[in-house]
Amino acid sequence: MSHPRPPNPFTLARRAERMNPSIIREILKVTERPGIVSLAGGLPSADTFPIEAVREASAKVLREAPREALQYAASEGFAPLREWVAAHLAQQHDMQVDAGQVLITTGSQQGLDLVAKILIDAGSRVLVETPTYLGALQAFAPYEPQVVSLASDHEGPLPAALAAAAASTPRARFAYLLPNFQNPTGHVYTEARRAALVAAARAAGLPLVEDNPYGDLWYDAPPPAPLATRWPEGVLYLGSFSKVLSPGLRLGYVVAPPALYPKLLQAKQASDLHTSIFNQRVVYEVVRDGLLDAHVPTIRARYKAQRDAMEAALEKHLAGLATWLRPVGGMFFWLELPAGLDAMALLPRAVEAGMAFVPGEPFFAEAALRNTLRLSFVTVAADQIETGVAALARVLREAEAAL
Amino acid sequence: MSHPRPPNPFTLARRAERMNPSIIREILKVTERPGIVSLAGGLPSADTFPIEAVREASAKVLREAPREALQYAASEGFAPLREWVAAHLAQQHDMQVDAGQVLITTGSQQGLDLVAKILIDAGSRVLVETPTYLGALQAFAPYEPQVVSLASDHEGPLPAALAAAAASTPRARFAYLLPNFQNPTGHVYTEARRAALVAAARAAGLPLVEDNPYGDLWYDAPPPAPLATRWPEGVLYLGSFSKVLSPGLRLGYVVAPPALYPKLLQAKQASDLHTSIFNQRVVYEVVRDGLLDAHVPTIRARYKAQRDAMEAALEKHLAGLATWLRPVGGMFFWLELPAGLDAMALLPRAVEAGMAFVPGEPFFAEAALRNTLRLSFVTVAADQIETGVAALARVLREAEAAL
Repeated sequence: MSHPRPPNPFTLARRAERMNPSIIREILKVTERPGIVSLAGGLPSADTFPIEAVREASAKVLREAPREALQYAASEGFAPLREWVAAHLAQQHDMQVDAGQVLITTGSQQGLDLVAKILIDAGSRVLVETPTYLGALQAFAPYEPQVVSLASDHEGPLPAALAAAAASTPRARFAYLLPNFQNPTGHVYTEARRAALVAAARAAGLPLVEDNPYGDLWYDAPPPAPLATRWPEGVLYLGSFSKVLSPGLRLGYVVAPPALYPKLLQAKQASDLHTSIFNQRVVYEVVRDGLLDAHVPTIRARYKAQRDAMEAALEKHLAGLATWLRPVGGMFFWLELPAGLDAMALLPRAVEAGMAFVPGEPFFAEAALRNTLRLSFVTVAADQIETGVAALARVLREAEAAL
Repeated sequence: MSHPRPPNPFTLARRAERMNPSIIREILKVTERPGIVSLAGGLPSADTFPIEAVREASAKVLREAPREALQYAASEGFAPLREWVAAHLAQQHDMQVDAGQVLITTGSQQGLDLVAKILIDAGSRVLVETPTYLGALQAFAPYEPQVVSLASDHEGPLPAALAAAAASTPRARFAYLLPNFQNPTGHVYTEARRAALVAAARAAGLPLVEDNPYGDLWYDAPPPAPLATRWPEGVLYLGSFSKVLSPGLRLGYVVAPPALYPKLLQAKQASDLHTSIFNQRVVYEVVRDGLLDAHVPTIRARYKAQRDAMEAALEKHLAGLATWLRPVGGMFFWLELPAGLDAMALLPRAVEAGMAFVPGEPFFAEAALRNTLRLSFVTVAADQIETGVAALARVLREAEAAL
């Protein structure tokens, strides 16, 4: 005898239809099985976490300011951390911002949610790169935008495409751009492309949302200055501690033009009152005396070696089976497979063969290139990288033969 | 020579108009001045934070599982903590829920945001008590509901009012209820009122959102069982660690009927990926061996003594100047002043006189009673409570004389 399912009295909001299970998170669940070399994850290597520094900082905070660290706190964030962020942006990225423009967020994913919350109406046009960061598409989706995919090459969106899309009515609310070592492609915008994109956006009065989680992870030379340095009143800038310190602490920040800051702050209050003040104080203690100056270069050295290992493995096993550009920063290789291959359909076969990747399809807002995939070179060690790439090569060779 | 303000290219979403600075947070800023006895704050007493336990737990987590505590984690929350929540609800509140129904949130404010995100369309009707929790009104506002205020007495909303509102079309998406020691009134629903409200909601197919941050803070007898125990498939239940452990760690939870859980989880992923796993592991270590069983009674004893101190001060200084009911739990006295007095207008005078309260007005979704105010008895010590109440009495006496 089966029990009838109890009646469900809830009516979902229309926006809930736009929400979908994260394909990447579902894939990650499968690939957490032992024995699978997962090149799918976007996880930083846990070997890079400054565990001892976090340990000391936690102990210090709970010794010196336990009552303040465990109490409610300001929605703007911990003032000394906001000042540190402003100083860091000036020193590392040539950005001149006031600490009063910095809003501490619960990871930079929350920054994306808050930006969408204050800027997107149902039906608003939002411009994105092709492809773009899946997590941003997921953050925006509940606010029901019409997402428009800009023609893009390996230097980012084409300025002419941006200008044309910006000229269409109704005017887009913003273009969402990842100039540095984008997830998923690893691409970086050149100096000339940055200048051209900002000029086009400014001329059209099109605001920009600049997401920069990977900017510190450069392996050959630092990237050009952020878009925000070129048009401060027209660019919302998002940063994160997840890739240079720890994602588990969930700390990011938004730098907002002063005209926009109050609404962003109100959205933050409505969303979670404030970000854990304990975490903010711990991270401030970790970074205040310059730990990142010494720590980030060690992450760069490690990831650069792993990138080189993956490049060597790709050249050895995948030459002629796929094409790619060597990423000069970030965490990912982006592969284009022969036309006719469908990465999503190949994933189960890859998992059978002992490896996992992320299909490119979910990163496209429109007209996906199904013959693309993303490989992370940061999560697994160099020797495992070759094992994973070799397994992928076997799967691709077999699939190509069957075309 | 004045600089022209740079042009602002951003267009705000319509929902941003619904967002307003938190009046309470703005008041708190003023009242943080030294010398002011603030009975305004909703802050737990920092003396109740189990600092030593948090210290030991943090050290243990960073010794035993540092890589896991600092890495990305599951959106659902830390599995052992979800299991602890389910067991705690069974033991303390007679709720039979599966750990799979528990979603860990970044404070219970985020629970309110997520619930609104998946259930409220622009124009959806949402029913609330009169008055109701201001933070919930702020969480709901960006989703543009039509908020309907239910006629309520000191036992909660009137079942007939709920039934009538539920019968109107379009059907309300949910009623938001705080059965235990509500913020701001301190009221608790009787057993009979709970039964009648659930019967009316169930008959109408009206889902309920039950918010229970204060349920463990009872001073005379435990409150009746939650609404969720009476209609599991029709009630979303929100809980929090903020009042029994620490608000600064930002940990709350939602218990969702299984039919609703996946959408809530997707909304969580889109909002901040997951709640800090470091914080979740620390809180789990604090609570796993039953610390709350010993700790919460010490909070109760302290707050009960402070409630008694405030009641004595009110009787001594405010008899005849205001009316109130003695709260049997929670953190607040709710005062009704003589008709014609406006608490918002009196606040600056009270601050001048050396104390602060929160005017009742922002807690009303419709037709505010301006002659109401909220006093917290938990934030300041007993001797200060009388100083603050005496100052309030002087202000009220003067204002009443001028009527």
